[in-house]
Amino acid sequence: MKKRVSTLLAAAAFGLAASAQTWIWYPGDYEIWLGNRMNNNRTERGAFFPPFWKTDSHFVTVEFSKDLDLSEAEEIVIKAEGKYNVKLDGKLQFGQPSTFLIPAGKHKLNIKVWNQSTPPAIYVKGKTVNSDPTWKVTNEDKEWIDESGKASDTSATVYALAGYWDFDDMNNPPSAYSLNLEPKNYVAVEQKTADGGRLYDFGKETFGRIVLKQPVGDGVVNIYYGESPEEALDLEHCETLDKILFDGDKVTDLATNAVRKNEGDYTLDNTKAFRYVYVAPEAGVNFGDAAMLYEYAPVEYRGKFKCSDPELNKIWDVGAYTMHLTTREFFIDGIKRDRWVWSGDAVQSYLMNYYLFFDSPTVKRTTRLLRGKDPVTAHINTIMDYTLYWFNGIYDYYLYTGDKEFVKEIYPKMQSLMDYVLGRTNKDGMLEGMTGDWVFVDWADFPMSKQGALSFEQVLFCKSLETMKLCADIVGDSADAVKYGRLAKELRDKLLPTFWDEERQALVHNVENGKKSEQVNKFANMFAINYGYFNEPTTKSVMENVMLNPEVPAITTPYMRFYELESLCDQGLQKQVLKEMKDYWGGMLREGATSFWEKYNPSDSGTQHLAMYGRPFGKSLCHAWGASPIYLIGKYYLGVKPLEPGYKEFSITPDLGGLKWMEGTVPTPNGEITLYVNDKEIKVKATEGKGYINIKSKSQPKSDYGTVEKTGDKSYRLYIDTDKEITIKYKEIG
Amino acid sequence: MKKRVSTLLAAAAFGLAASAQTWIWYPGDYEIWLGNRMNNNRTERGAFFPPFWKTDSHFVTVEFSKDLDLSEAEEIVIKAEGKYNVKLDGKLQFGQPSTFLIPAGKHKLNIKVWNQSTPPAIYVKGKTVNSDPTWKVTNEDKEWIDESGKASDTSATVYALAGYWDFDDMNNPPSAYSLNLEPKNYVAVEQKTADGGRLYDFGKETFGRIVLKQPVGDGVVNIYYGESPEEALDLEHCETLDKILFDGDKVTDLATNAVRKNEGDYTLDNTKAFRYVYVAPEAGVNFGDAAMLYEYAPVEYRGKFKCSDPELNKIWDVGAYTMHLTTREFFIDGIKRDRWVWSGDAVQSYLMNYYLFFDSPTVKRTTRLLRGKDPVTAHINTIMDYTLYWFNGIYDYYLYTGDKEFVKEIYPKMQSLMDYVLGRTNKDGMLEGMTGDWVFVDWADFPMSKQGALSFEQVLFCKSLETMKLCADIVGDSADAVKYGRLAKELRDKLLPTFWDEERQALVHNVENGKKSEQVNKFANMFAINYGYFNEPTTKSVMENVMLNPEVPAITTPYMRFYELESLCDQGLQKQVLKEMKDYWGGMLREGATSFWEKYNPSDSGTQHLAMYGRPFGKSLCHAWGASPIYLIGKYYLGVKPLEPGYKEFSITPDLGGLKWMEGTVPTPNGEITLYVNDKEIKVKATEGKGYINIKSKSQPKSDYGTVEKTGDKSYRLYIDTDKEITIKYKEIG
Repeated sequence: MKKRVSTLLAAAAFGLAASAQTWIWYPGDYEIWLGNRMNNNRTERGAFFPPFWKTDSHFVTVEFSKDLDLSEAEEIVIKAEGKYNVKLDGKLQFGQPSTFLIPAGKHKLNIKVWNQSTPPAIYVKGKTVNSDPTWKVTNEDKEWIDESGKASDTSATVYALAGYWDFDDMNNPPSAYSLNLEPKNYVAVEQKTADGGRLYDFGKETFGRIVLKQPVGDGVVNIYYGESPEEALDLEHCETLDKILFDGDKVTDLATNAVRKNEGDYTLDNTKAFRYVYVAPEAGVNFGDAAMLYEYAPVEYRGKFKCSDPELNKIWDVGAYTMHLTTREFFIDGIKRDRWVWSGDAVQSYLMNYYLFFDSPTVKRTTRLLRGKDPVTAHINTIMDYTLYWFNGIYDYYLYTGDKEFVKEIYPKMQSLMDYVLGRTNKDGMLEGMTGDWVFVDWADFPMSKQGALSFEQVLFCKSLETMKLCADIVGDSADAVKYGRLAKELRDKLLPTFWDEERQALVHNVENGKKSEQVNKFANMFAINYGYFNEPTTKSVMENVMLNPEVPAITTPYMRFYELESLCDQGLQKQVLKEMKDYWGGMLREGATSFWEKYNPSDSGTQHLAMYGRPFGKSLCHAWGASPIYLIGKYYLGVKPLEPGYKEFSITPDLGGLKWMEGTVPTPNGEITLYVNDKEIKVKATEGKGYINIKSKSQPKSDYGTVEKTGDKSYRLYIDTDKEITIKYKEIG
Repeated sequence: MKKRVSTLLAAAAFGLAASAQTWIWYPGDYEIWLGNRMNNNRTERGAFFPPFWKTDSHFVTVEFSKDLDLSEAEEIVIKAEGKYNVKLDGKLQFGQPSTFLIPAGKHKLNIKVWNQSTPPAIYVKGKTVNSDPTWKVTNEDKEWIDESGKASDTSATVYALAGYWDFDDMNNPPSAYSLNLEPKNYVAVEQKTADGGRLYDFGKETFGRIVLKQPVGDGVVNIYYGESPEEALDLEHCETLDKILFDGDKVTDLATNAVRKNEGDYTLDNTKAFRYVYVAPEAGVNFGDAAMLYEYAPVEYRGKFKCSDPELNKIWDVGAYTMHLTTREFFIDGIKRDRWVWSGDAVQSYLMNYYLFFDSPTVKRTTRLLRGKDPVTAHINTIMDYTLYWFNGIYDYYLYTGDKEFVKEIYPKMQSLMDYVLGRTNKDGMLEGMTGDWVFVDWADFPMSKQGALSFEQVLFCKSLETMKLCADIVGDSADAVKYGRLAKELRDKLLPTFWDEERQALVHNVENGKKSEQVNKFANMFAINYGYFNEPTTKSVMENVMLNPEVPAITTPYMRFYELESLCDQGLQKQVLKEMKDYWGGMLREGATSFWEKYNPSDSGTQHLAMYGRPFGKSLCHAWGASPIYLIGKYYLGVKPLEPGYKEFSITPDLGGLKWMEGTVPTPNGEITLYVNDKEIKVKATEGKGYINIKSKSQPKSDYGTVEKTGDKSYRLYIDTDKEITIKYKEIG
């Protein structure tokens, strides 16, 4: 685990090549298993709280195979998670051999593994024969024989390429995976005399296990967690708690009934999110002190940002920390609640990730887990919009990474999910919520119908169909490409005729019982802008009549502000968005936030900020979707984005948005783009790919590399194809 | 486990009522898990040998719920297999409570369990609140809440009734299940001086674990199993073997790598089928003696038979023992090989079971396991005919047991499997083998095409569609009943036009590339007779031109002889069938069989009888499908069969078939029908149901109960609705 960071980079960089040998499994199965372990760690006031959607499980029997052609005999070492057999050229070998000699020549090697509890996985190491992602796997080998013993030649087994991550060490099998742990101390403690308890402050939002030091006596130690001091001290309403019973030489975790020997300092099994912890021993028991084991994913902050505005720097730093806390085995929503993987949250984490960690394995893991197994019996997380975001996340992933192998792996799962979606359209080919579908959109503070066909859902659906078309082309399925291309075009052609309100110059909210709604809100309109679904005059009109119209209801979740502010940036309103970031995210900081929240309504005050879902501390104060400035700053201020998949071609369009200067780094699959910008000078260095730097300048900029072209009024462009630092002198139009 | 027999009877008798409280789970999941454990116990020469078809697994997260209305507060005790939570009226309770007080009044109690390794299961015991089959279960509760905390009312969760068996003891959870064990000794031992090994003979085919007594020294003890002495002594070719390494205070099973402390007598973990065992210690190690632990299902021989012919009695006894050995966690094919659950084998075991154990739970378990989980990605066991038999097994189950609850439970799985089947028909609505389909029919000794539409498959398919129609009526799905009724009729109407050969007076084998085959064999013809698909003149003609025509290729597997002899019995040829049973099954006995074989060709001799699949000992000498006399004797000699589901109405048509006398018992769901017949007298007693006894007599029979009606020439009938023994005097027509 120690070398995880560099390995992640290597995996991101070289895609399928990975290492010479690594643990392999059925693709997607490890994620499903690990996801169950993670999703099922949520507790609510000491009660186990698993997700309410279908929990899948791995294939319990998997066959791994490889065709070999050896110039000389070779001994291999075999390790497996599960009961296994080894077959060479169709002949089963005795027992479960841990070493095996393969003679020279052409051979077929098969290893079949059964494991109910954890995903069947193998590790093979030889001189040339090594388990790697080129091995084929199947859960259904259909190798029947006839009466003479001849194997069937019509079994039509469907093979996939093996799944893998970075388990390159034979003695570190996939099921033993854990995040990193680091001891940390509190920054303040307060004795609460009323009941003998102590309130610990760990200084900022954090995640891990509490350590009770030097326990003495017998009795229950109650532990109440809070993202705020109010929560930790509200014994009846805090969202999470633990109860540890010390009883002679034995310690019982009363939430899990797990019993351990009392060996002095006691570290809880259960991880929790908190900044404050109120530890209240009952009569007869006490403890010396408390501490914590911080649990985190060893990701590297490859994206960087600093500017002339200290508040924006703070916003970026807290956003990055929020992203780090919620980037774990998978991208989760919030670390206190729900600690689950949600597709709508994840698709934003992916985008932020491309500007922070560029950790592709976590994007792939999350995408696989969200999709789960066939049959599809409900929308992802039960939410219609979340199914659609899932497709769009693959579009983004391909654009940022250029990883065709992953598209090929996941495409069959895209097909079966889209079949499910297409089975739920109305006579116009549009998606309406059917029984069992959660039509979510947003936690909006205004009444919003979820009935009929919502324009918002159709815009997402259209993008999903376009993604299917794109991916069908990548995998070379031309029939699918034609089908999805046609469906996407048909739907897109219907969007304006169905939802456009000429008077209001906006897409209305929905069509219900054949009647077009009167309501205009930002949701569908901003996605249509971001996806480029309006022509230029319409875009301008929608900006004015919807996005910048104070009479259109405000968005109060960072979740949808993500897309709202993106659409403003997309239209060049960086100055205004900078102000909004400082108001909104700065507002949370002024309320004492050390990580960004699930929801923030500036008109709330005091403990109103903590409440949600009818519970006084129901709100999550560390929510990934709160970190959107990471994305906005990278893409629309530093202005870096891929034009061709995997940054083969990129564009850099710096926009100070009113800042005096800024500098930063945007990671690319195998390198980075570094930028310094003030009102006179731009310095840029791209270690891979090539592309354009777009400059708005009052006069012709000068560069120490290449020729700066004029592309319009005060618009210039410089083509870069060097990995050296380039300096451009210009005059900001400001 | 000790009371299993009586509990099985109770469960069979009272269906859903079961006991007051019992372990419950998601229906079908326990069978899938237990089936994996059983199917994966097969080994071949010390190598783990799992099935080649898709291995499913249980739902890992399951919610159990019950609506309560308590007149007074009540404390319940809760036990679960897995991590669980308890929710009362939507409120999660702290921890994993093992006791819980429910206040008086109306409540909703939910318990949600997660378990990756074994099926989530619960046991609840209170005064009135008890886990039983009336609890609802789901794997997908979809209980989302809105921002205010209000639960969704459109989640459309699909609930099923809980699955159960007979785990009525809180401390005997389902995952701890095992069959019964009983120490047994060998009957003969022979020292083989050549290599110092000993050949043990356990007297007859058996199943269990070998015990090595008083091991001394260090080294490997090799154990070679044989259903014949030839097999046990053929170290290179015996089908199963074990190698146990004694090394100081440690014993290693070299096939599984399991290590145990050496504590004297060593009992193997691995079960095997054998009559002979050759134990060969290598240099440096030895042992005092060998024994075995016999492993068996505690089923009761409720069916009985005895007659004037000692050979037929022996055939019945060996058939019953064959059935007992292959009736285990499920009905399996053979105990040496494959030790797997195969649908074509199982459907025969079901029928034999109704005349021997009448063990309904094993039929239900086997039916559930074979069906597995959705999605359907291949035929059951990959075999087209085996999918079709699966439907027909449900038809038989309902006819013999009258259990509508099971039909309701399994119906959704019947629908999804039939959807798969209907998705694989040709333009004429007939089934042809597509890539990945194994078209099996039989291990035939003559060339037989598996291409195109086989008449045999269409006859089975037609019966499957009729079964769908029947079950749709039972569950009250009238749209389905119309659909499947129409499909069944359409297919049946096409059978003769497509396959009938007027000249040969037979259904020909297949239609391939639009061309009707020239081949006539018995398969389709005998099924069409058994299903009543021919009218009377056609049936007679097919009997003469196919079934009794020596030029039509002979059937050489007991598997298909089952249906062949049934069709002869159905046409009243009991005398001939008795002769064939004595020839064919008597032939196996004369070859020394102590259980009946997978295949028997009377023209083979010596060790030819042991070979199959190109391996000298590939044949299974204890195969369930070898036991068909159990079924034939019960149904066509004792002549007992249900006319209405569950023996509400029955018919008894005794036929001595040339025997001097016979007596026997046929079990019914909650009772039995006992019969004694000779050429002058019939004594009959039915402890439940009512029905007819049909008598062929030279003159008017006389009865001590009711009035014997004349129904035709030398045909009489007596209606019975008493549970007293009735005596009928008659004159057999011979």
